[in-house]
Amino acid sequence: MSDVRLIDIREEILSDNQELAGKIRRDLGRHGVFMLNLMSSPGAGKTSLILRTLSTLRDRVRIGVIEGDIASSVDAEKVSREGVPAVQLRTGGFCHLDAPMIERALKELDLTDLDCIIIENVGNLVCPAEFDTGSQRRAMILSVPEGDDKPLKYPLMFSVCDALVVNKVDYLGTSDFDLERLRERVCKLNPDIRIFPVSCKTGEGIAEWTGWLAEQVAGARPPA
Amino acid sequence: MSDVRLIDIREEILSDNQELAGKIRRDLGRHGVFMLNLMSSPGAGKTSLILRTLSTLRDRVRIGVIEGDIASSVDAEKVSREGVPAVQLRTGGFCHLDAPMIERALKELDLTDLDCIIIENVGNLVCPAEFDTGSQRRAMILSVPEGDDKPLKYPLMFSVCDALVVNKVDYLGTSDFDLERLRERVCKLNPDIRIFPVSCKTGEGIAEWTGWLAEQVAGARPPA
Repeated sequence: MSDVRLIDIREEILSDNQELAGKIRRDLGRHGVFMLNLMSSPGAGKTSLILRTLSTLRDRVRIGVIEGDIASSVDAEKVSREGVPAVQLRTGGFCHLDAPMIERALKELDLTDLDCIIIENVGNLVCPAEFDTGSQRRAMILSVPEGDDKPLKYPLMFSVCDALVVNKVDYLGTSDFDLERLRERVCKLNPDIRIFPVSCKTGEGIAEWTGWLAEQVAGARPPA
Repeated sequence: MSDVRLIDIREEILSDNQELAGKIRRDLGRHGVFMLNLMSSPGAGKTSLILRTLSTLRDRVRIGVIEGDIASSVDAEKVSREGVPAVQLRTGGFCHLDAPMIERALKELDLTDLDCIIIENVGNLVCPAEFDTGSQRRAMILSVPEGDDKPLKYPLMFSVCDALVVNKVDYLGTSDFDLERLRERVCKLNPDIRIFPVSCKTGEGIAEWTGWLAEQVAGARPPA
């Protein structure tokens, strides 16, 4: 006699997550709020890009920020000093944000008072790629010092993103990072991805990035 | 202006888990079913101990098994060949079982047909110690080849368990493992823990272990 029932927990968790993410997206849509899930390795420049984005768009777009962090709340404090609403999700060891965590964070934000929410995910190129947070768009940052081989190592992350910000291009001169080789590798995985070379330090390329983001926000607004 | 809301996800997850674990325990109590959460490092002998326990107790106790495994289902198949109901939870990378997973597995078992459920947790001495599964008792296995210093390295695991099975005592002669030193280290963390030196290979100590387990099962039965 043999009687094994097999339950695939990971698939069930991902499928429950997907369902809740769909619900979050519908709620945001009803409020005409656009949400971006911003992902990268630790230190690639997520907080710097958010600060640059805030200072460029704040007069036109009402932005709120959800900060995911394993232990600290320094990023949320930096963002909050810019005068925008910020929610810090302290994951206590969890390596990604998921839809239930975002649902929890959204309760702390007044959607009627916002046009755009930026999620700063936990610094990690693996698990965050698997969990839909309910955002309408996903973007990732790759910084030049990380190397142009990252699409080969983390193909899922490059495949699920709508935009790739290549940050720290001010290092291009002193590095063997090849932007064209990167483009080829990324486009093989994801031909529709938009690529924005930027330097959060010098401000180079920030206008193109924020232009794209402002278009996405406008697209989420209900017709007048 | 500063406006940071701080949400501690880990604490919320652990507290939600605890609440569901309490509910599971009440449900088991109503059915007079005893559940044991069995934890250890990979390879310490969880499946071997379960097989020894089944062959010793099966005439007296109706046992079902919930097997947690990252990827395979070989352990559930081994157990199921003994003719007992077995549910395989394939975690797909998750390093522990939690109360929602156990609730899911329990739906596949007929509680009216069982006296005892043994959960074989994922092989890991860290995270499983933090997540209450809804079991009435927790036991862990430490095998002699792992060394008698493990209570110093994984104090939480040794603190939360009601019983410690020291497996592979047939290796004691050829190892510097000191059972008395282990006892001292464990009892400092957890003076009430019951310690059972056993060898799943030779059968030494299995009667004492299964005697303790049978007492726990009897304690969970409703008065006639």
